[in-house]
Amino acid sequence: MAKEKKQPRPKAETPRGFRDYFGAEVLERQEMLAKIAETYQRYGFDPLETSAVETVEALGKFLPDTDRPNEGVFAWQEEEDGGWVALRYDMTAPLARVAAQYRNDLPSPYRRYTFGPVWRNEKPGPGRFRQFYQCDADTVGAASVAADAEICAMLSDTLEAVGIPRGDYVVRVNNRKVLDGVLATIGLSSEDEATRQAVLRTIDKFDKVGREGVIQLLTKGRLDESGAYIDGVGLDAAAADQIVAFLLARADSNAETLVMLRKLIGTSAIGEAGVAELETIATLLDAQGYGPDRIVIDPSVVRGLGYYTGPVFEAELTFEILDDKGRPRQFGSVAGGGRYDDLVKRFTGQDVPATGVSIGVDRLLAALRAKGRISGAMQGPVVVTVMDRDRMADYQAMATELRNAGIRAEVYLGNPKNFGNQLKYADKRESPVAVIQGSDEAARGVVQIKDLILGAKIAANASLEEWKAQPAQREVARGDLVAEIRAILERQG
Amino acid sequence: MAKEKKQPRPKAETPRGFRDYFGAEVLERQEMLAKIAETYQRYGFDPLETSAVETVEALGKFLPDTDRPNEGVFAWQEEEDGGWVALRYDMTAPLARVAAQYRNDLPSPYRRYTFGPVWRNEKPGPGRFRQFYQCDADTVGAASVAADAEICAMLSDTLEAVGIPRGDYVVRVNNRKVLDGVLATIGLSSEDEATRQAVLRTIDKFDKVGREGVIQLLTKGRLDESGAYIDGVGLDAAAADQIVAFLLARADSNAETLVMLRKLIGTSAIGEAGVAELETIATLLDAQGYGPDRIVIDPSVVRGLGYYTGPVFEAELTFEILDDKGRPRQFGSVAGGGRYDDLVKRFTGQDVPATGVSIGVDRLLAALRAKGRISGAMQGPVVVTVMDRDRMADYQAMATELRNAGIRAEVYLGNPKNFGNQLKYADKRESPVAVIQGSDEAARGVVQIKDLILGAKIAANASLEEWKAQPAQREVARGDLVAEIRAILERQG
Repeated sequence: MAKEKKQPRPKAETPRGFRDYFGAEVLERQEMLAKIAETYQRYGFDPLETSAVETVEALGKFLPDTDRPNEGVFAWQEEEDGGWVALRYDMTAPLARVAAQYRNDLPSPYRRYTFGPVWRNEKPGPGRFRQFYQCDADTVGAASVAADAEICAMLSDTLEAVGIPRGDYVVRVNNRKVLDGVLATIGLSSEDEATRQAVLRTIDKFDKVGREGVIQLLTKGRLDESGAYIDGVGLDAAAADQIVAFLLARADSNAETLVMLRKLIGTSAIGEAGVAELETIATLLDAQGYGPDRIVIDPSVVRGLGYYTGPVFEAELTFEILDDKGRPRQFGSVAGGGRYDDLVKRFTGQDVPATGVSIGVDRLLAALRAKGRISGAMQGPVVVTVMDRDRMADYQAMATELRNAGIRAEVYLGNPKNFGNQLKYADKRESPVAVIQGSDEAARGVVQIKDLILGAKIAANASLEEWKAQPAQREVARGDLVAEIRAILERQG
Repeated sequence: MAKEKKQPRPKAETPRGFRDYFGAEVLERQEMLAKIAETYQRYGFDPLETSAVETVEALGKFLPDTDRPNEGVFAWQEEEDGGWVALRYDMTAPLARVAAQYRNDLPSPYRRYTFGPVWRNEKPGPGRFRQFYQCDADTVGAASVAADAEICAMLSDTLEAVGIPRGDYVVRVNNRKVLDGVLATIGLSSEDEATRQAVLRTIDKFDKVGREGVIQLLTKGRLDESGAYIDGVGLDAAAADQIVAFLLARADSNAETLVMLRKLIGTSAIGEAGVAELETIATLLDAQGYGPDRIVIDPSVVRGLGYYTGPVFEAELTFEILDDKGRPRQFGSVAGGGRYDDLVKRFTGQDVPATGVSIGVDRLLAALRAKGRISGAMQGPVVVTVMDRDRMADYQAMATELRNAGIRAEVYLGNPKNFGNQLKYADKRESPVAVIQGSDEAARGVVQIKDLILGAKIAANASLEEWKAQPAQREVARGDLVAEIRAILERQG
């Protein structure tokens, strides 16, 4: 190579808002995704993996959670034709593109699932990354609410498949049309778009500001915690009460909830259509054995209202965890979705109904960790230490024998001079067993096997007698290496 | 929503050079990667998943196969601080960054594997995409050639694990230092960098232009196929012969090859070091049972010579396939790698030896398909058809029962009006069985089961008698639905 000019060294840093995943973190996610995929496949969903890059045109202005259209993505211009392309920000926009592009080849309805990273050009913060995993399942081309019900049932099965027991979660179902009906009864038709959007944004704050807060915000306004005055939407008190009554309309049974909703929508046709859809969903789920212990109608579900056109749903984990300040709180939402009948139409001009769900993989993993359902540990390898650099071939042969017997094994490949470093290495690797063979042992045809788990336990707890009675290191015949180590691993469990 | 302005419809197109993967394609790759991961883990390698995005600074100017430094990547500027970031173009640059960033936390040596897409901003062409999968395993922090030997053995095991039988592949090993020694004997020291690079680029064309072509290019130059005259490197004939003799030095056994190489390097110290390394690798592999039927010393291996500093290796599939024009040719390389001792040093200034291998996932999948080792088919779901829209709950319950028995099943969710469309749909889904229940069957407590595989076979082949004797559609009791379908699936195999 040419002599390098002195250049400042590059910083070894992940870019802001991005992160790396190591060892067990990667395996845990893969195992969870494999269980999810198995469930989705059993429901007839096929895998799809789209390109990470889309044209900005195809992505459109549907980015959730941002008021800045066309911002929030990582985009660049193509050299050749100057066209703008960007990393996908979710899995729904690419699905709409695929459904339009391959509409002559795909079965209709088309059920697909997809796993993968999405990218958002947002300001990173604690626990808020600019690349994260999503895991979506959608049905394109089915107008029937049977498709929505199926996704709710599948979501329920999926949560149980990954290790959330029944009773620890609930899938809550609502319908955008019922809300439209309620808004109609208070005189807000689809023409009053600005006010409707203001109402939707306000409802979305229900969890945060509570019943009284929402009523204030829907009417005259409210003094914020920070002391700032937030202008109200300007509805009268009766209208605000009606909306809050809708949000709180969840009763003890789905049937009672439906009765309350029917009252709230009055004579609105769209509202009646929405209630009928919820009723059908409840009936279908009941027939499949998904009762209200798993899936329930709950009008307080308000999510990503931007593009949803019918049923919306959310999976919530109902057990408590401790928050940063040690206070118990519910774990909350790990998945959500709904019906969006207009996305594919952007491309084709034709109506293509669609419904789907997205699981927040990182949140679900956090939940499983909180419940102790995943270990966070990876089985470390047996480490064959190197006492004699010239006999590397013998050590490699031992590791090969172990591997051929299906046992994770490796030879220490650092500088073997300091033997203590080799045992420190085995420790860092969470190795269950170390193998040691010096020239003396080699001459006698034996090896030393050190049970590192037992050794650590003895070092921590045992009396001298126990230590003598149950040595963690012992000598075995070289020919018994594999059998002896297998026995130790079985004993360790 | 606000009234939309009339906008031209977006085109439903994957961006140029990008593609989507459907159904079985996705599953095949996942299954292959799972087998590779299992092998890598058995060797003590841990998974690592780095961010798709890196700072341009961290990526450096190591992009393979391009003469345009800092080009060839998809890069953009951060809004906040104007720093440049880019999608990774391989897995080695991110590993070097990680090894430097986490050097106090990672075990040393650090063995890791990683799977995922990489992105190259190149001109797309037939079969040449700008996003593709790589699957790498590397050992960082081990200077010993035992680490290189281990990777060769692991590569051999991996190919067999995914379904390439012994005899259908060979891992070929060479050493950059031996080539350096040969160049030293013809008077080209590491000072003559420009000439050395020209020699390396020329050698790389050996496969394409052959022995005579390389000799011409190393000396006076050569008339290209296109009629253009390519300038030669300007060596004398004896020097060119010496280099070609090196490339062709592979003998019947590793021992004979080593003898030939020793002759070619004369008294060069670096050459001798290289031959000694090759000898050690051969000895270590032999001790582990990896003979020349799997791994062989072959001086003609010349690959990505840019950053390699010692052993280089390549896995080649030796069976023949037919090319586009129907001519038999060897399948060729599916994986390669080598030792690169300078990459981590960029960040830390300290020497950190490293060696690794990268499997071309798409090429390996193509090879498995060519050998008929993967089916390319995904088990289609049982399709429960809809004869009576009002009895959707009953149909859903059938699908649920089948799924609970572990059978892939779905209810037809398109418009049920045209029953023929439902059977066409089942056909497109490659469904093994269709379930049919009209109101008459429901009243009698039975269902019709249609064996679609048998049906297709009968339609294609059978005589009338056979058709009568073995009907593909029959009526069974509703309560026997699951058992009867399981029996059909077992019969279909």
